[in-house]
Amino acid sequence: MITGGIRVLNAGLPLIVDGVPAADVVQLDWRPPAFGDAHVAEIAVSLDDEITHDANRRAIAAVHAVRPRLVAVRPAREVIAGMGEGKVLLHAGPPLDFGRMCGPMVGALMGASLFEGWAATPAEAEQLLRSGQVELAPCHHRSAVGPMAGVISPSMPVLVVADGERRAFASLNEGLGKVLRFGAFDEEVVTRLRWMRDTLGPVLDAALEAFGPIDITSLIGQALAMGDEGHNRNVAATSLLTRRLAPTIAALPHGIEVLEFLAGNDHFVLNMSMAGAKLAMDAAIGIENSTLVTAMARNGVEFGLRVAGTGEQWFTAPVGPADGLFFPGFGIEDANPDLGDSAITETLGLGGFAMAASPAIVQFVGGTPDDALATTRSMRRITLGPHPAYMLPPLNFTGTPSGIDVLKVLDTGMLPVINTGIAHREAGVGQIGAGVVSAPSEVFLKAAVGLRHARDSR
Amino acid sequence: MITGGIRVLNAGLPLIVDGVPAADVVQLDWRPPAFGDAHVAEIAVSLDDEITHDANRRAIAAVHAVRPRLVAVRPAREVIAGMGEGKVLLHAGPPLDFGRMCGPMVGALMGASLFEGWAATPAEAEQLLRSGQVELAPCHHRSAVGPMAGVISPSMPVLVVADGERRAFASLNEGLGKVLRFGAFDEEVVTRLRWMRDTLGPVLDAALEAFGPIDITSLIGQALAMGDEGHNRNVAATSLLTRRLAPTIAALPHGIEVLEFLAGNDHFVLNMSMAGAKLAMDAAIGIENSTLVTAMARNGVEFGLRVAGTGEQWFTAPVGPADGLFFPGFGIEDANPDLGDSAITETLGLGGFAMAASPAIVQFVGGTPDDALATTRSMRRITLGPHPAYMLPPLNFTGTPSGIDVLKVLDTGMLPVINTGIAHREAGVGQIGAGVVSAPSEVFLKAAVGLRHARDSR
Repeated sequence: MITGGIRVLNAGLPLIVDGVPAADVVQLDWRPPAFGDAHVAEIAVSLDDEITHDANRRAIAAVHAVRPRLVAVRPAREVIAGMGEGKVLLHAGPPLDFGRMCGPMVGALMGASLFEGWAATPAEAEQLLRSGQVELAPCHHRSAVGPMAGVISPSMPVLVVADGERRAFASLNEGLGKVLRFGAFDEEVVTRLRWMRDTLGPVLDAALEAFGPIDITSLIGQALAMGDEGHNRNVAATSLLTRRLAPTIAALPHGIEVLEFLAGNDHFVLNMSMAGAKLAMDAAIGIENSTLVTAMARNGVEFGLRVAGTGEQWFTAPVGPADGLFFPGFGIEDANPDLGDSAITETLGLGGFAMAASPAIVQFVGGTPDDALATTRSMRRITLGPHPAYMLPPLNFTGTPSGIDVLKVLDTGMLPVINTGIAHREAGVGQIGAGVVSAPSEVFLKAAVGLRHARDSR
Repeated sequence: MITGGIRVLNAGLPLIVDGVPAADVVQLDWRPPAFGDAHVAEIAVSLDDEITHDANRRAIAAVHAVRPRLVAVRPAREVIAGMGEGKVLLHAGPPLDFGRMCGPMVGALMGASLFEGWAATPAEAEQLLRSGQVELAPCHHRSAVGPMAGVISPSMPVLVVADGERRAFASLNEGLGKVLRFGAFDEEVVTRLRWMRDTLGPVLDAALEAFGPIDITSLIGQALAMGDEGHNRNVAATSLLTRRLAPTIAALPHGIEVLEFLAGNDHFVLNMSMAGAKLAMDAAIGIENSTLVTAMARNGVEFGLRVAGTGEQWFTAPVGPADGLFFPGFGIEDANPDLGDSAITETLGLGGFAMAASPAIVQFVGGTPDDALATTRSMRRITLGPHPAYMLPPLNFTGTPSGIDVLKVLDTGMLPVINTGIAHREAGVGQIGAGVVSAPSEVFLKAAVGLRHARDSR
């Protein structure tokens, strides 16, 4: 006989305790590990040992020890491996055949072909790409990253980010509106790319030569105390950088044009943030047995994940569109599935992971300032530790959650949150909004299997 | 007979209920109105009627309707009334005889006399000032404001802020270190003042002429979403402004020097924020029966308060030093009592009132980010309403508490919180820290009496 009343603690579905008065029930927010996949759950448990923990300590220490500095802006063909001759285009995300590529990616590749003079019309450009005469490769395979379509062509100037012998590269940010990275390719787009090649790139390179390198960690760290999150909000970092370089740029021929461009592009530093994060994360590639995520990238069709212990292997899964705030006249039905290498910022602990720094970001990606704080707090559960240089003032100056651990994602069932722009699904249109997206669970399941396999093969 | 136990609700001193078990006591945080002054409490109650409420509605509406724009930078003698000829110096705070002035104020007046060429040595300058041959007047009496010592001399370039026919003025910010406004007056200080007169002022004026006016409300509003509070933290507004004006400044002779100065002065926009606040608050001066505070200012000896319904009258009380964070080697014993017109920013709802926007400010003035949120929330209790253009993202985009009501201060016993710099008490030393200070209660008691008197005299 039960005489003292019933108190229920339920870890299963709420319907199990539907008949019990709500006041007597505590419903746990518990999810089965490995998203309910028993096989992967067993693998995850088998990997959760001192070997993995030791490897992860070394991996995150290697990442946090990198101090990326912007040292130059050079044409891609001069600095990126394999871009010196021939028709080569880099793109965002994991590898993908041209035939499977999404609208904005095709549009950006067409625009780059027009810009390089490989084709005279959009139709010619598409035909050229379809013919297979242009070599296509992921940015990530060449130490580079690019936002959205992420297309880099040989003549484009790229940011050169360095720490000692390490190098990483990123395209220059074009600003908002009709831009190549969102799949637009008309004359306005190509004209801007020519100006970036002939003026913006050389002037910035000369300015860096005169001024000296820019410490990206310091710049982004300061911007996190000024409402940026290092991915979708970059107005503070861009303003700080412009103010610092303005005297040097002003002294150069065409400096005024460059200052005008920087004054009008609130997102200029995004690509620096990305290249800096890429340089840092690459330090962990190939650290055996580490379950640290070293890259998250999307090509508009598939989401790709790389993990330290499995080197340069990609674990992929289909990707969906981001939800968020759309420009007037557009909705989720117009949205392309998520794309871009910019999730390298979340991989390091910026962007969605640093939302707490940026209450104003919610006006751009949706939600409330409290959601922003909660998002950062929740990302602590799937990361290896706080970033030592990226402090979040609203959370009493604790470091941003840094270094996603595949095992923690599987254990908690919490997926990395990524801030992102939203491209129209058709080539040639451009940006239609911005929002938040979760990484797909499938890539973490595959990564666990890959990590187990890598350990067993040694 | 009490049989059900005792529950105590205590609104008095905690010692009254010292003998009652703590668990049974609710201690109210209640303070007697008018800081315990029964006579003023009666006056405050007598003023708390529809006449006052109606006047306050009109007063705060008038303040919020002002849209200050920076339109020019001109020598003080050209634009400030009564500075066209003769030896005139303006200073911060309410009026004060030279003989009673504090060290940093005397130092700044000496430096300005040297800068104007009225004296060749510091000793000559002090003698001249002591002789009474230099007319001294508060900045506030000439539609102007100046931070710390706030000294404005005829040759100094001043910011000209306008809305229609309204005008307000402020000195140009010199940066940190050895600067006039903290009482330093050596050759470095005077040399910088000459450069500001000959280069900075004319270049900024020409840039504004070419670029057009700068909307101060829009600039500060954007900076509040970037960690500034518009008083002690100005790096976002300064960076935004510099980035916006850089192309125009770069095209002017000596533009590069000016861009270098702006790149090195994180506080440049403070004086713009002050002049904008002054222009807005002046719109309420003389609105009969309004209990809205229109100015708070300190001269290093006395704190001065002005209230809409009593026009240009000052209510004064002795002022103490601010508590906060001191530079290494200095402490509160070295601190001058608080000074400066910069509390005009708090008068409008910036600075201490907007701390919630600026979690990073606590590294400069002390406290924690939670204290910053609590401070802004508490200032709601003594203000007439949220500012319609100054949103605070961490408080879900509510406006900053704006418009201090003398009656609410007396009713709640809560005093306005002011962020401030701390000057060394001796002339010639300079800044030794920054911190937070409360307005003295005495000025609010005097203001209530003055308001009652003003009403009775009509």
